Order: sequence, then C-alpha cells, then structure tokens
Amino acid sequence: MTNPSFRQLADIPVRELFPGFFFQLIHTANNTYSFVSVKAGSSLPIHNHVHTQSSFLLEGRFEMTVGTETSIMEPSTFILIPANMPHGGRAITDCKLLDIFSPVREDYM
Amino acid sequence: MTNPSFRQLADIPVRELFPGFFFQLIHTANNTYSFVSVKAGSSLPIHNHVHTQSSFLLEGRFEMTVGTETSIMEPSTFILIPANMPHGGRAITDCKLLDIFSPVREDYM
Repeated sequence: MTNPSFRQLADIPVRELFPGFFFQLIHTANNTYSFVSVKAGSSLPIHNHVHTQSSFLLEGRFEMTVGTETSIMEPSTFILIPANMPHGGRAITDCKLLDIFSPVREDYM
Repeated sequence: MTNPSFRQLADIPVRELFPGFFFQLIHTANNTYSFVSVKAGSSLPIHNHVHTQSSFLLEGRFEMTVGTETSIMEPSTFILIPANMPHGGRAITDCKLLDIFSPVREDYM
C-alpha cells in the first residue's frame, strides 16, 4: 500500500473553465471533487451530463435551477442531482461551492 | 425523472456514532457524505474499512494518522485514504470535517 500524503487545497491549480467559474479539481478512482469559486453575476446555462452531481453551497448565495425547480442556495443548502438531469445557475454574490461527481469527470481531467 | 428537492444540512439528524463525534450522513447511490463535528480532545482509534475515504478539514485542527504518517490537518488540508488503509485521529480543537466514502457506508444506514 502506498502511503498517501496530506495535501492542501491551495496547492491545486485553479482553472477558469467557464467565465467567472474558477475550479479546483480532485479526481479519485470513483469521484471528481470540484471546489468552485464563482464571481457574483456569473452564470452557467442549463446543461446536463451522465454523472450524478451533489452540490453543497459553502459560501454566498447561488440561484440554482434543477429540473423544473429554482431555488436560492445559501450556506448549508445542498442538492442531489440525478444523472442526465438538466441544471444550471447564477451567482447572486461571490460564492464557493463543492460539487461531487460520480463517476469521475474524464472531460475535466 | 423525479425532481430532487433542495435540502438543508440542518435538517439531517445528528448521530453521535463515537464519543464526541457527531455525524450527519447523506447516502447517494455510490457515496456516503459524512459531515462530522468533533469535540476537542475526542479521538477515534486506528481502524480500517473497505471503503475509500476522502477527508476534508473544514474547521479547527485535527491530528490524523494515515498508514505510517501523522499530520495536523487545518482548514483546506485534505487526504485521500485508500481502501483498507489504517487511519484514526484526535481533535485538537473543536473540528468540522467532511468525509466522503465510496462505496456507500451500508453500516451507517
């Protein structure tokens, strides 16, 4: 068994994959963890993917649409998004989110 | 497709599964997410399980041993623990951690 090392989130490269959305990505065998900082006013159009996604709002306020439901996420709000479910949203303030995907987002590797 | 609902972490029951370790558990098809609040001084003996575990320190300071390595986790420290790798630790201050398990922790359901 290889001994894993303790790591710092700050050491993970930041990638602006969509305008105003800054991603730090961690890939494991079965998941991708995505820490996302979003600038106020930035939005991500409705999209979908084969991965399940769990989204946790860590800081700020984010207007999220999932399927036919739109709600304002605040810290401690979370949502479990099934595979292929359309979703998207807009940062009302600067935000931090944690998205957890299953399986791994190979398109982000 | 069923439309998922937005949920609040505060609505998830808190279970003290080990002395001083207070768990809020979310189970999906492939993962268990475990938000853990730990009282300063509480410790979890070295143990292991077949699940991979990713641990993120959200608040406080936590002394973690994984395999042969011991380190102090602070906010933004994380570690990816392979299946069956012995690990355990002790809260130096009151702490909050997020542990992500794969597959689901059926023993916690």
